[in-house]
Amino acid sequence: MSAHHQPQPRKPLPDGFLDDVRALLGDRLQLGEAIRAQHGASETHFEPALPDAVAYPHSTEEVVALVKLCVAAEVPLIPFGAGTSIEGNTIPVRGGITIDLSQMDAILSVNAEDFDCTVQAGVRREQLNEHLRDVGLFFPIDPGANATIGGMASTRASGTNAVRYGTMRDAILSLRVVTPDGRDIRTSRRARKSAAGYDLTRLMIGSEGTLGIITEITLRLHGIPEAISAAVCSFDTLEGAVDTVVQSIQIGIPLARVEILDDLQMRACNRWSKLDYPELTTLFFEFHGSQSYVEEQVRTVKDIADMNGGGEFRWSNLPEERSKLWKARHEAYYAAVNLRSGAIGWATDVCVPISRLAQCITETKADLDKSTIPATILGHVGDGNFHVVFSIDPNAPEEMAEVETINARLVERALAMDGTCTGEHGIGIGKQEWLVAELGDAVDMMRMIKRALDPKDLFNPGKIFAL
Amino acid sequence: MSAHHQPQPRKPLPDGFLDDVRALLGDRLQLGEAIRAQHGASETHFEPALPDAVAYPHSTEEVVALVKLCVAAEVPLIPFGAGTSIEGNTIPVRGGITIDLSQMDAILSVNAEDFDCTVQAGVRREQLNEHLRDVGLFFPIDPGANATIGGMASTRASGTNAVRYGTMRDAILSLRVVTPDGRDIRTSRRARKSAAGYDLTRLMIGSEGTLGIITEITLRLHGIPEAISAAVCSFDTLEGAVDTVVQSIQIGIPLARVEILDDLQMRACNRWSKLDYPELTTLFFEFHGSQSYVEEQVRTVKDIADMNGGGEFRWSNLPEERSKLWKARHEAYYAAVNLRSGAIGWATDVCVPISRLAQCITETKADLDKSTIPATILGHVGDGNFHVVFSIDPNAPEEMAEVETINARLVERALAMDGTCTGEHGIGIGKQEWLVAELGDAVDMMRMIKRALDPKDLFNPGKIFAL
Repeated sequence: MSAHHQPQPRKPLPDGFLDDVRALLGDRLQLGEAIRAQHGASETHFEPALPDAVAYPHSTEEVVALVKLCVAAEVPLIPFGAGTSIEGNTIPVRGGITIDLSQMDAILSVNAEDFDCTVQAGVRREQLNEHLRDVGLFFPIDPGANATIGGMASTRASGTNAVRYGTMRDAILSLRVVTPDGRDIRTSRRARKSAAGYDLTRLMIGSEGTLGIITEITLRLHGIPEAISAAVCSFDTLEGAVDTVVQSIQIGIPLARVEILDDLQMRACNRWSKLDYPELTTLFFEFHGSQSYVEEQVRTVKDIADMNGGGEFRWSNLPEERSKLWKARHEAYYAAVNLRSGAIGWATDVCVPISRLAQCITETKADLDKSTIPATILGHVGDGNFHVVFSIDPNAPEEMAEVETINARLVERALAMDGTCTGEHGIGIGKQEWLVAELGDAVDMMRMIKRALDPKDLFNPGKIFAL
Repeated sequence: MSAHHQPQPRKPLPDGFLDDVRALLGDRLQLGEAIRAQHGASETHFEPALPDAVAYPHSTEEVVALVKLCVAAEVPLIPFGAGTSIEGNTIPVRGGITIDLSQMDAILSVNAEDFDCTVQAGVRREQLNEHLRDVGLFFPIDPGANATIGGMASTRASGTNAVRYGTMRDAILSLRVVTPDGRDIRTSRRARKSAAGYDLTRLMIGSEGTLGIITEITLRLHGIPEAISAAVCSFDTLEGAVDTVVQSIQIGIPLARVEILDDLQMRACNRWSKLDYPELTTLFFEFHGSQSYVEEQVRTVKDIADMNGGGEFRWSNLPEERSKLWKARHEAYYAAVNLRSGAIGWATDVCVPISRLAQCITETKADLDKSTIPATILGHVGDGNFHVVFSIDPNAPEEMAEVETINARLVERALAMDGTCTGEHGIGIGKQEWLVAELGDAVDMMRMIKRALDPKDLFNPGKIFAL
């Protein structure tokens, strides 16, 4: 499972290519080592690979021009947002030009009456929510990191709110995309639903930049609920925590968020975010609705937690307390990595049918306990999706090998339960062999689509699958 | 806008082809005129075109064998469910073999704990809901007709519950598909979400049989709500009715169903279904939730309706009363067509951002009022989606021409409002030029995908676009 660590073939840029790009972008074409290194690294354990240059377009028209230059010169191009992806999704394994969309960060329109907005790909989710607050709306998808909307679309991100509000698949009404043949298309109109032809919107979502460059996104928004209540509850057993969630969902409680953190993750959070929660398996809840409906939800879930060995509910009804709680959850990845000083993170995620979740987490926890490498479990338990974060020594190759073996067992366990090798991180570099194990011949259908749309394999080459 | 009425080229079946199919299916290959006519007609005004034969497979393996025979012999094949589509989606315009999946009607598994089930493509939605009732679950997508799940997937159907529960896009976890190269693939696993590669599930949903044959579907289910309440309310003005819905959604009421029927449609329903509702613009509502939450929703919506000129709420809280109400709604199409005896139906639908819905419906109503052809408006007003049903004289070509002109104005009106030319009927034969008007170059991207996956253009050829 380490083919992805082999170097990939790189070709030198053709003569005159950079001059052509500079004529287009001026000093928004950057060749400096530091900037290239920043765009060649990732948040996790993957070996970096530097792009030959980094381009910062300011408009879809500039992206079209860039694409045409790259395709004519057969130069790979890698769309880049905030660089917060987990599976090496933006590493330029064959070199080429990284197209950094972070300067395309305009919020183009907000249609409050229609609960939608249109943004450029480089807008970040926190920026968007700050902008929306005054009109009483919010954008619910929250993968933790302050990612760009374009990056979140490209990896089909989801996160803590998905149990109630869905994933990027559900959140997007329409995309503006620059295709490999240099067209500037919109995949859909602004209507809530449509049966007009193939669902190019969904085809692009999760395609990790391999089929085109997303430059604008029209998003569905939601009204800020009248009442929001958050709570933390510890459990004696992992099964008790998972069963609480499963039973709550089964009787129809529309949990807005429900996150599981295992004992080690709670210790890491306490240390990193200076908190004093019990270091036991813990659920973080959030409830949305009218005042009376939230109260009804809370009563029911408390009863269910009681029956499953849950402890006291610690409430955070004030916005600043809630922020503190969710800040701790958002910092959980860094907290876990920093369980050892000088360590780097190795993160994986799977998603299984919810009836299999308790078993999958319990078996995984037992497997982790056999290793000396610190590893935490945290997850979006309402979706059946959870993460394992390993804190590994970057100078100990045997740790990398051990983690790959544990990860292989985790993914095989999830696949045997009719689950998926990745709930929300995407395939990137790290999950390519698992994609084939999961979907078999369907991957060939993906390849046929890729070859048809990007015959020269220039758009984020080497990601999702080798062509 | 009538290119679709021109005859398409047909090739005779190659020698020996039918013998090969008969060797596979025996008397489940049918050549009789009546059966071919049944599969060559449609529910609406399109000119029929007969298939050369109709095949009734019983398994995915038989579908694979059929596909291989058809592709080798270059014979078109048209997947067929219940034949209830509206845009001529199953008419074999170039002849070939209609593959009728109605005998593949097994419910393969129900995973009550995971709120999902897997069915063969020929299962009908009413059959599925009867099967599910005992486990307290239901499948919410309801396009009116008792369609097959496979057909509903192929046209991205939605209907009355979509405002709360989404469309077929949201309802499907995974598909089993026979591809044009004869592979038998699954597009996804049974996990609630996944970021594993391209979203082939969504690519197939709404592709109208042009990219493969769906043989099995894994569906998301929902718990039957603790309380269900339905109501009917008349309004003096169309705007009052639409504004009631828009304002209810904007303050966060999770309406389970909300249907608009105009005055003429109410007259048609009264006559056809023997009812006594006021013949005014009317909303049909349904509310789902816990007892107290439903009561809260109802109180709020009544207040909003009052402010917008709504009359009394007529309640149907008993299941049999609710069934009567929704039966009338489901029969609305036939009621509308039968406003004139001997008439046939000509149906269209558009969907616009909800802020534009009142204007779109009002302008359309004014346009319809100028014509002598009876035409009703009914729609899924919570989604911004509405239908117009014309009751036309099949022997009066000038009526067909007039309706095409009115439809053109309707679609142009919707597109000018950033809406779509079809919210739920699909493109089929009837909306092909409008698809291009709506999405421009994006249609070329669809064509590239079609050519890559079905290079001989054998899967439901002539639908969605001409290659």
